[in-house]
Amino acid sequence: MDLNYIEHIGIAVKNLEEAKKYYEEVLGLKCYSIEEVEDQKVRTAFFKVGQTKIELLESTSPEGPIGKFIEKKGEGIHHIAFSVNEISKQLASAEEKGIQLIDKAPRKGAEGLDIAFLHPKSTHGVLTELCENQRHCHPKISSK
Amino acid sequence: MDLNYIEHIGIAVKNLEEAKKYYEEVLGLKCYSIEEVEDQKVRTAFFKVGQTKIELLESTSPEGPIGKFIEKKGEGIHHIAFSVNEISKQLASAEEKGIQLIDKAPRKGAEGLDIAFLHPKSTHGVLTELCENQRHCHPKISSK
Repeated sequence: MDLNYIEHIGIAVKNLEEAKKYYEEVLGLKCYSIEEVEDQKVRTAFFKVGQTKIELLESTSPEGPIGKFIEKKGEGIHHIAFSVNEISKQLASAEEKGIQLIDKAPRKGAEGLDIAFLHPKSTHGVLTELCENQRHCHPKISSK
Repeated sequence: MDLNYIEHIGIAVKNLEEAKKYYEEVLGLKCYSIEEVEDQKVRTAFFKVGQTKIELLESTSPEGPIGKFIEKKGEGIHHIAFSVNEISKQLASAEEKGIQLIDKAPRKGAEGLDIAFLHPKSTHGVLTELCENQRHCHPKISSK
């Protein structure tokens, strides 16, 4: 696999407004976007620090993945996402090496990125996301 | 507070050699250093991806903080560390804003950095480290 950099770190929070206040007022970061991702049942707030985004995730339903995570483990770091090129190729390479994939093929995530998750059972406990920004990396490929 | 970038992400693992193999052979990262930090009862392996390091942490004792973390939560992301300048000033600023500090004053961590932790109770569940590389940020200050 070929990783570019850490695209974002996903952090599960109970209350987006309260957590946003901490990231802004204590850590001094600026929230540049709030977005709801319906199929993941989350509201997200984005911050940037250096190359990497911090994505706060508040569940919009106790049945969603973030709701379940918080119920089990409490608030905290939920996943880490690496920027890659040619995401389908990287997924195939991981699968060939015996890694269990949550997403066999990329799907659309927040900010319009193509994303796919590797299962934490195969990654020493770290829920790992790969993501590719088609607009930035492959300007010649037209969007669907 | 004024954060520069994400200096590293600390990941608790049961077996450093096995986890190192995953980061090298699957993710394609290169381990550039292995270091034991005695007072933290850990062996660490470092990788770099973009601006940020990944620091794998294996406990050298079940009584150490990483041993206890794994017993309670299993393998996974343990903390996030931000690069700052003037770490003592940043700590004072956090404390003024009501943040509970684990370290009231900076101490020496891996790679010779000055480090201090904020308590996850005050940071929405994220064990948060501040770190400063005196050699890089303040070339005029002589080392002890």
